[in-house]
Amino acid sequence: MENITCKGFKAAGVASGLKKNGGKDLGLIYSEVPATVAGVFTKNLVQAAPVLLDRERIKSGLCQAVIVNSGNANCCTGDQGMRDAVSTARFAASGLGISEDLVLVASTGVIGQPLDAGKIEAAIPDLVRAAKPDGLADLAEAIMTTDTGPKVVSRQGEIEGKPYTVASVAKGSGMIRPDMATMLCFVVSDINILDDILMESLLAATNKSFNRITVDGDTSTNDTTLVLANGLSEARVKNSAHKESFQIVLDEVLTNLAKMVVKDGEGATKLVEIMIKGALTNKDAYKIADTVANSNLVKTALFGEDANWGRILAAAGRAGVKIDPYKADIFFDDVMIAKNGMWCGENAEEEAAKILKRDEFAISVDLNMGQGLASIFTCDFSVEYVRINADYRS
Amino acid sequence: MENITCKGFKAAGVASGLKKNGGKDLGLIYSEVPATVAGVFTKNLVQAAPVLLDRERIKSGLCQAVIVNSGNANCCTGDQGMRDAVSTARFAASGLGISEDLVLVASTGVIGQPLDAGKIEAAIPDLVRAAKPDGLADLAEAIMTTDTGPKVVSRQGEIEGKPYTVASVAKGSGMIRPDMATMLCFVVSDINILDDILMESLLAATNKSFNRITVDGDTSTNDTTLVLANGLSEARVKNSAHKESFQIVLDEVLTNLAKMVVKDGEGATKLVEIMIKGALTNKDAYKIADTVANSNLVKTALFGEDANWGRILAAAGRAGVKIDPYKADIFFDDVMIAKNGMWCGENAEEEAAKILKRDEFAISVDLNMGQGLASIFTCDFSVEYVRINADYRS
Repeated sequence: MENITCKGFKAAGVASGLKKNGGKDLGLIYSEVPATVAGVFTKNLVQAAPVLLDRERIKSGLCQAVIVNSGNANCCTGDQGMRDAVSTARFAASGLGISEDLVLVASTGVIGQPLDAGKIEAAIPDLVRAAKPDGLADLAEAIMTTDTGPKVVSRQGEIEGKPYTVASVAKGSGMIRPDMATMLCFVVSDINILDDILMESLLAATNKSFNRITVDGDTSTNDTTLVLANGLSEARVKNSAHKESFQIVLDEVLTNLAKMVVKDGEGATKLVEIMIKGALTNKDAYKIADTVANSNLVKTALFGEDANWGRILAAAGRAGVKIDPYKADIFFDDVMIAKNGMWCGENAEEEAAKILKRDEFAISVDLNMGQGLASIFTCDFSVEYVRINADYRS
Repeated sequence: MENITCKGFKAAGVASGLKKNGGKDLGLIYSEVPATVAGVFTKNLVQAAPVLLDRERIKSGLCQAVIVNSGNANCCTGDQGMRDAVSTARFAASGLGISEDLVLVASTGVIGQPLDAGKIEAAIPDLVRAAKPDGLADLAEAIMTTDTGPKVVSRQGEIEGKPYTVASVAKGSGMIRPDMATMLCFVVSDINILDDILMESLLAATNKSFNRITVDGDTSTNDTTLVLANGLSEARVKNSAHKESFQIVLDEVLTNLAKMVVKDGEGATKLVEIMIKGALTNKDAYKIADTVANSNLVKTALFGEDANWGRILAAAGRAGVKIDPYKADIFFDDVMIAKNGMWCGENAEEEAAKILKRDEFAISVDLNMGQGLASIFTCDFSVEYVRINADYRS
């Protein structure tokens, strides 16, 4: 991995003993100066303690450090869980010599078991010592659960000739469904931007990225995306043109991470974009895309490289919105497999079979009813997914 | 299998060549006299040709024969598909020497490929010859797709001392989700009952049985349940007490079949009842039960015999209805694993682990908020499910 840095930020990842396998499980982001911050969180009504804590703290618009653990979600852990989240922030604040109000917390891992905050406390000196400008790769490793590899994306932008960086790490890779994909994502930037503008940008970017991916249809209790901008570059967002240019960079970073998350979906072997067009409304199109993207029958057929378009149309038919199956055209990339809801024959089947062998392709359904559009990224559903999730806690 | 018969009915199952493996794929039910009939069909907007045909024909309230094929769903097959469904009925009518308006049709199998009605026509003499009073077992075999075994349930009832029979066959076992479970189900009875009373009874029984089971969250395009009552016994439904007594028998038959379908869910190794109580309303409870019963993370944990109650609560939290996770108690059979949304500790975990090893058990969630109740039967989600569905068309 390239050595990614972002002015004024340090990051770290160490092993604290929370993960049974002894791997890195404690991560840190630290900014030399308090940064403006924006965050989006899970919409699940069951929310982990760190999510509840961050929702409160983020209201100040400022953050100087984020401490994050894997191996335990600190969710369904009651008052003790909240005390543990607060303590975790305090340990980090104390190690860094900053105010604990400026520390946010995130956790991922098993739900419903008490967090051993003592392990975190004991690892703080190590963690602080390990913090370094190119430490994002270590952080990315420390937040992995069933991920098969760390996920880091970085882009450069420029405002009035002044460069800035947007660097980001994320973890997936099960319990992924909009809104939002189950995951932790931390973005740092040295751009100078107001917190409310940052929040608008984050919401827009999230809708184009993490809210458009699905792995298994489950929404996590711990989803958290945080963006910290410390303003230490000379690039400053002063008008809507600047904002737009930053939006493009942020969109690209989060979209790339989102695709990495789906591609690394538990047991996934393929990244498939489900594109619905010609629906009556965008909302209808989204509902259909979501139903197709989460259909186990569609996803297992993708794993089997089977151009089973009937399952795609059947999923569309149960999405709860109006469609006319005998108007629908279905494509695998540019191969039309069904026209007006009917099979295009053996030739199309053979051509489609070639597309299905690819690692990445698109399934498009044109409903030919209106102008509604939506697209969602999904993955196939393999025997490995079941193996991973049957044994997760053992 | 016991020799199940029902007065005045014959049934058959033969091989017509529609199934690639040469197994039985064509079935028949025939009544000596026209029977009153009631039916319920899929709510998917994509509906197979035989479903569209039956919906029309059933309006007459009378039916004398049902012809059903497996190996091809005759769905997404357009005008030709409808012509094939009509021809199929005509072939049967001609072979049996009855009016084609009195013949209903059902199909199950691959979606989107033309039905070879010629094979059906050629097999009619065989099929008619094979029809016999104890032929339901052959019919049950002929309608199987990924089912691992035939499903036949029969019960005796009595009205004013006069006995009658309700005998039934069904097939599952993927694309199962309310409403209604994907399946074909054919019920015959020699009771004497008006068609509108029969329809009311069927709807009530369906809500207690097939609308309470799920295997994989997909709703089929071909779901069909038909009940034929030919009145050849002396038992006659003349008042509401009689109706109630028939309802009990019909409920029991369909509930037993429904459980057989889930238990034989593709790759399933366990039958699990998801019971939600203490919700604000019954509707809320149903939504939560449906979300938990269809959660891949919950179902893979069941396969792994893992008492992962956090996934159960997390699924409840994303069901789209109001809950307070810190009021929820969760049980595996009679073992409380979580109280007030928090883990009950190692002892409970050990006791729960024993329950999880059973073939059948219940997961109960008491939300402690109101009086809302619902229950759904589901199964675990195994590597075998993925294998079956990845290769289905090959």
